[in-house]
Amino acid sequence: MRHPRQVRVLALAASFAGLLVLLPATRLPAQSQSRSALYADAAEKLRRLGLQDERAYDLLRDLTAVGPRLTGSPQAAAAVDLTAQMMQDLGLDDVHYETVVVGRWVRGENESAAVVGSSLIGDRPLAVCALGGSVSTSEVGLTAPVIEVKTLQDLAKLGAQVKGKIVFFNRAMDRTQADTFAAYGAAAEQRVRGAADAAKLGATAVLIRSLTLRIDDCPHTGAVEYEPQAPKIPAAAVSTRDAEFLSALLRRDPDVRVRLQLNCRTLSPVSSVNVVGQITGTAIPNEVVLVGGHLDSWDLSVGAHDDGAGCVIALEALRLIKAAGLKPRRTIRAVMFMDEENGGTGGAYYVKDPRRKTERHIFAMESDRGGFLPVAIAAGANGPPRVFEKIKGWESLFLPLGIREFVRGGGAVDIGPLSTQGTIFASVLPDSQRYFDVHHSALDVLSSVHPRELELNAIASALLAYLVAQEGI
Amino acid sequence: MRHPRQVRVLALAASFAGLLVLLPATRLPAQSQSRSALYADAAEKLRRLGLQDERAYDLLRDLTAVGPRLTGSPQAAAAVDLTAQMMQDLGLDDVHYETVVVGRWVRGENESAAVVGSSLIGDRPLAVCALGGSVSTSEVGLTAPVIEVKTLQDLAKLGAQVKGKIVFFNRAMDRTQADTFAAYGAAAEQRVRGAADAAKLGATAVLIRSLTLRIDDCPHTGAVEYEPQAPKIPAAAVSTRDAEFLSALLRRDPDVRVRLQLNCRTLSPVSSVNVVGQITGTAIPNEVVLVGGHLDSWDLSVGAHDDGAGCVIALEALRLIKAAGLKPRRTIRAVMFMDEENGGTGGAYYVKDPRRKTERHIFAMESDRGGFLPVAIAAGANGPPRVFEKIKGWESLFLPLGIREFVRGGGAVDIGPLSTQGTIFASVLPDSQRYFDVHHSALDVLSSVHPRELELNAIASALLAYLVAQEGI
Repeated sequence: MRHPRQVRVLALAASFAGLLVLLPATRLPAQSQSRSALYADAAEKLRRLGLQDERAYDLLRDLTAVGPRLTGSPQAAAAVDLTAQMMQDLGLDDVHYETVVVGRWVRGENESAAVVGSSLIGDRPLAVCALGGSVSTSEVGLTAPVIEVKTLQDLAKLGAQVKGKIVFFNRAMDRTQADTFAAYGAAAEQRVRGAADAAKLGATAVLIRSLTLRIDDCPHTGAVEYEPQAPKIPAAAVSTRDAEFLSALLRRDPDVRVRLQLNCRTLSPVSSVNVVGQITGTAIPNEVVLVGGHLDSWDLSVGAHDDGAGCVIALEALRLIKAAGLKPRRTIRAVMFMDEENGGTGGAYYVKDPRRKTERHIFAMESDRGGFLPVAIAAGANGPPRVFEKIKGWESLFLPLGIREFVRGGGAVDIGPLSTQGTIFASVLPDSQRYFDVHHSALDVLSSVHPRELELNAIASALLAYLVAQEGI
Repeated sequence: MRHPRQVRVLALAASFAGLLVLLPATRLPAQSQSRSALYADAAEKLRRLGLQDERAYDLLRDLTAVGPRLTGSPQAAAAVDLTAQMMQDLGLDDVHYETVVVGRWVRGENESAAVVGSSLIGDRPLAVCALGGSVSTSEVGLTAPVIEVKTLQDLAKLGAQVKGKIVFFNRAMDRTQADTFAAYGAAAEQRVRGAADAAKLGATAVLIRSLTLRIDDCPHTGAVEYEPQAPKIPAAAVSTRDAEFLSALLRRDPDVRVRLQLNCRTLSPVSSVNVVGQITGTAIPNEVVLVGGHLDSWDLSVGAHDDGAGCVIALEALRLIKAAGLKPRRTIRAVMFMDEENGGTGGAYYVKDPRRKTERHIFAMESDRGGFLPVAIAAGANGPPRVFEKIKGWESLFLPLGIREFVRGGGAVDIGPLSTQGTIFASVLPDSQRYFDVHHSALDVLSSVHPRELELNAIASALLAYLVAQEGI
C-alpha cells in the first residue's frame, strides 16, 4: 500500500471511521440518538486519552514481570501487592483486600514423557506438561501401552480394553469455525473429564492433545476435574505436533508404549485475596458497576493474555475515567479476582463477602478472552431483552473504537456467582483467532500482546462502565 | 480463561457466532433474505474449505521465499514466474502475462546517517533508509545543520531559513485515531512532498520521521515524489526512536549537524508483466470480476503484508471457488499487478491492454491493507447507493466469518484506472492496528502474518467475488 495522494478512491474507504459514526445512528430511535450524543464528548475523551499512550501495556509489563501467577504461589502474592499498589497510584477509592482461601497445586521439577522401546523408532521424547490439578506418577514414572480415542464416547465404547493403558485423547479443535471459542468449547471436555472417565475404566494415565489450532511443540495446560470418590490418574497435555506424531506412530505400531513421569502435587490450601478498588459513585454509591479480571494464571508463562490483560484492562479503564475528569453517579469498581483457573474460588468468595450486604451490583464485566482486538460488545444475556436493547442503543459511541456489533451475551467465571443478585453481565469481546495459540502455554507472554489492541479493550470497558454508571440498567 | 463447564454464562457469548447469523437477517428485506439463503451453502463450503487448512499462508511462504520484490528487480521477475506457476497449479484458465514497462530504482550498498561533532554528544549514528525513488548524495555524503518542522506549512513559513540545511520532518502519526489508515493519510504528505518542497527552498536533504505508531529502531521507506522541473535532493526516513532522539537533541543543541550518505539510484526502465489467470464464466464470460493484489514490494523485507498477502488472497480465493465446486456465471479473475509502490504502472497498463476491449469489468477488489483480521466489507463508493445496498444485502453470509460491518468504500491503486469503465470497487477491510508497525520496513515478514486471519480474507474475497459473478451488480 502506497501513499494517500495516489489512493484517491481508497480515501473513501480510509475515511470510513467518520462514516460509521453516522450510519448506525440513523438506525436508532430518536431518543437513543440524543442519549448517545450526550456522551459523545466523554467517549471521545476516553478514546483520545487511551490511544495517546500505551498505559495498559505499561501496566501489563509490570504485572507480567512478577512471573507466572499460579494460584497460591509467591508470585500470585506479589501480584496482589503490586496491583493494590497500582490502584493506590491511580488514586482509586477504598483499595482493599478481601480474603479468599485457595487450593495450591505445584508442577514439581520433573515432568517428561517418551515413546520407549518402539520396534520402529526406539525411544523418542514427547513434549508434555501436567494438567493443572493432576496427581503425580510414582517417582520413577509409569510405562504403559497407549490407546487412542477422540471422544469420551469412544472411551466408553472401549470399556475394559483401556485397563492398564494410557488413554490418548487426540481430538483436534475444529478449525473450520471462525469462532475459536466455540471450537475450544467443543473439544475441551477431553481435557476436563478425560482423566476421571478413563480412571473409572482402569486406565493408568491420560495424555490429552493440547487445545490449540497451531501445530507446534508447546503443550497447553489447563484444569483437570477428578471425581472425589473415584480413582485419580495422572493427566498430561501433549503438544499438537507430538500428538500428530504419536497418532501416526500408533497406526504403524499399535504396541507402542509410553513412559510418563509427573511429580506435580497438591499442597495445603493457603490464604489469598481478591484485590478491590473503585471510583465511588457521586449519587448512588451503593450501586456498583464491576470491571474485573483474574489475577492468577497458569504457571507455564506469565499469563499476559490469560488474564493479565483482563486485570490491566480493568485498572486502565478506571484510570481513563478519572483522567477524563468523569464523575460517575454510581460506583465503578475494579476487582482482581484470585483463582479463576484452579477452582473459581475468587468469584465465589467475592459474592459472599459481608461487604456485599450493603451493595447492589447492577452490572458486571469481566475480560477473560485475551487482550486482542475488541470486535463486539456482548451484554445482557441474563436480563430481559429491553436491557440488551438499552445497551445496544449506545452502539454509535463504540464505532470510533472499531467495535461494530452488539450481541446478547456476556459473563465469565468470576462474576458468574453475581447472577443470583440479578446483576447484568457484559463483556467486551476480543477477536478469537490468536487466543488459543498462546492460551495456557509457554507462549502467553508480553510480546504476544499488541499495545493498541489491549488499550482499545480498556477504552471500551471504561466507556461501557461509565454509561451504565450514569444511566443505570 | 478456564474451561467450558464452569463458563456457563459465557457459553451464551461463545455461541454468538450462531446468533449473529440470525440477528442481522431480521433487518433485511424479505427478498434479500431469500437471495442470501440461496448462497448459504456456498458460503459455508468456502469457509470450511478455507479454514480447514492454511493454504493462503502456504502460498505466502513460497512467495516470500523469493525475497523482497522491488519493482524491476530479479526477485520481482522470479515472483512473476512463481505466481504464474501457482495459477497453473491451481488449474486457472487463460494464465498469461501482460507487459508493463516499469521504472527501476535501487537502494545501493551504503546508506547511513549520523549526528556528527555535537558539542553535547559527539558522534551518534541514526537509523535511516533512503526513501523509494530518492536521489543519492555524493559519494562521501553530505553534512549540514538540521532544522525540524512538523508540516509542509511549517516549512513554507521558514522559507529561506532552510537553505543549505537538512529539513527534518518530525510529524508523528496521530495515535488517537483507532483507524490507523486515517492517521497515515494525514501524516504521509511529509514523506511524499517534503523533499520537493524543501528542495525549492534550497535545502540540501530531508530526513522524514518513519510513518509508524511504534517507537522502534526500524526506518520505514516509501515513495517520494519530486517535481520534474525542480531540483531533487536526497530523502531518507529515520526510525521513530531516532526521530525522538534527534528532536530532543535539537532542543538542547540547535547547531546539531547530521551527515547523510545515500547511494541509491534510478536505472533504466525494464520490461515486466502483470500476471493474470481466471475462472472463466459459464454464462457471461466477458463480464469480469477482478480480485487483485500487487506483486512488487519494497526492498527492506519480503513484503509479507504489503502486498504478498493481497496476491495470495486473490490466488486462494480462486482456489476456494474451484475447490468448492462452484461454477461462476461471470469470469472471476486474479491479477498480480506489477509496480504499485513505485509508480502504479501495473494498473495503468492493465486498463489499456488490448484484451480489455472485448471485456467488461463489472467489479474489482484489491487487497492492499495487509493480511490482518478482516472486519468489514467496503464497497460501492463509486456507484449509486443501490449498488451498495445490494452488496449489503449479503451481509448475513459474511457474519460466520466475523465480518460485522458493510460500509460504502472500496478501491485501491491498481484497480483505480478501471473506474473509467464504470467498474464498481470493493475491498475486504482488515483491521488496521498492526499494519503500520511493519509497513515498508524490515518487519514486514512472514511471521507477522497470522494464517487464519489471512485465510479469512481469502474466504471473504472468494464469497464476495462469487456472489457478484452470480448476481451481477
